[in-house]
Amino acid sequence: MRLTKYTDLALRVVMSLAAIGEEASTIRKIADAMQVPYSHLTKVAAQLQHLGLVDSRRGRGGGLMLTERGREASVGGLMRHLEGEGDVVDCEGVTPCPLSGACRLRSALRQAQEAFYASLDSLTVADLSQSPTGPVLLSLVSTNS
Amino acid sequence: MRLTKYTDLALRVVMSLAAIGEEASTIRKIADAMQVPYSHLTKVAAQLQHLGLVDSRRGRGGGLMLTERGREASVGGLMRHLEGEGDVVDCEGVTPCPLSGACRLRSALRQAQEAFYASLDSLTVADLSQSPTGPVLLSLVSTNS
Repeated sequence: MRLTKYTDLALRVVMSLAAIGEEASTIRKIADAMQVPYSHLTKVAAQLQHLGLVDSRRGRGGGLMLTERGREASVGGLMRHLEGEGDVVDCEGVTPCPLSGACRLRSALRQAQEAFYASLDSLTVADLSQSPTGPVLLSLVSTNS
Repeated sequence: MRLTKYTDLALRVVMSLAAIGEEASTIRKIADAMQVPYSHLTKVAAQLQHLGLVDSRRGRGGGLMLTERGREASVGGLMRHLEGEGDVVDCEGVTPCPLSGACRLRSALRQAQEAFYASLDSLTVADLSQSPTGPVLLSLVSTNS
């Protein structure tokens, strides 16, 4: 079972920004710290800004920072949004499954998917940056300053 | 969030065999009914036999059939087995995440993954072939006889 790479990157960005706290950081620093491609992070950061979870500050010492809404955002809610409404198996692909309209498995998998997200609903982005994760993240981003 | 294609195919095979009941069916018939590649199903069927969920009958009217163990198998248990122990994001890939040993997200995602499987634990393969799914499956496999 896999989440999309896009969701993975978005979670790494908000965790990194949560660890940094009041400071701003650049996409370049986060990309280097998390060892992920810069170009992929720019798209992710743009969507996080669009969602109001991340804000950007211009000028010297500028960059991205987490908003209050971003800090308090539910990890389950964010993942529902990033992953979209799709099924966990390919019910409606290029060759749609002939069962798709009458499938007990499909409805069971939707419930299971909801159980997955529900278990993350009470976790916030700020929670993800608590020790031991936060200090490790902070040292990684600082190393790449 | 996606399950592997392999798990998807395995679930389609056991559902089809559960719908057929006491009869045997061939991999070719199931592949045609479910509109999936024959070559992919042969590997899946071999593993299902290895797990004792499916048996094969030789000769005229022969083919694959679900064992009693297969009918009673837990969908959650089967999926845990087919999906393996991997993380839902790429913690230990070609470029391992520098956080992997100290990541609050990783442990939260493991709990979420377990919640997904747990919601399918009480569901059996036989349950998947109840109406309306079973009759539709049966008509698909019969059409392709």
